[in-house]
Amino acid sequence: MSQFNNATVEKAANVYYGGKVTSRTVILQDGTKVTLGIMLPGVYDFGTEGPEIMEILSGDLKVLLPGSEIWQEIKGAETFNVPGNSKFSLEVFGVTDYCCSYPAM
Amino acid sequence: MSQFNNATVEKAANVYYGGKVTSRTVILQDGTKVTLGIMLPGVYDFGTEGPEIMEILSGDLKVLLPGSEIWQEIKGAETFNVPGNSKFSLEVFGVTDYCCSYPAM
Repeated sequence: MSQFNNATVEKAANVYYGGKVTSRTVILQDGTKVTLGIMLPGVYDFGTEGPEIMEILSGDLKVLLPGSEIWQEIKGAETFNVPGNSKFSLEVFGVTDYCCSYPAM
Repeated sequence: MSQFNNATVEKAANVYYGGKVTSRTVILQDGTKVTLGIMLPGVYDFGTEGPEIMEILSGDLKVLLPGSEIWQEIKGAETFNVPGNSKFSLEVFGVTDYCCSYPAM
């Protein structure tokens, strides 16, 4: 799916880490939320409330998921899941385009 | 208007200047296009095909519009128009969030 139809798009961006990570919030037709974002090179820590499905559309990065001691390399497109109420870390080497989904809990 | 309803959102980002300028394409209910973008500090030159309405949602920048020799300062929210088939330049000092509209020609 290359686009979302019948969506509600928040106009203002979400800005993190001084603009090195930014996203737009989109509410899908079924009421669930996704954020479409860009990460520039850097090291980032994020926390989750509910579970998240992180779809890397394109990028070059490593991710450290909760409970793991191994940084997983991602080059190009790949999806990983992050449990709710947890923390994960990313080291981004190249411009990374992502779609983060927040499945209804 | 803080959000767009019944919109179609392209999933993949538009990436310029090595990721220092990125945007998402949104097709509105009336069929017109907007892009929601972020510019990080830097100096940028852009060209237009059709006319563009550039709404700065928040930012700190200067813009040089075609036919002008004066760089216009923008701090915060402001809107400017760019004629079609022209070039304009931006000097961005702080993270700048924008919504660019492409009125039907």
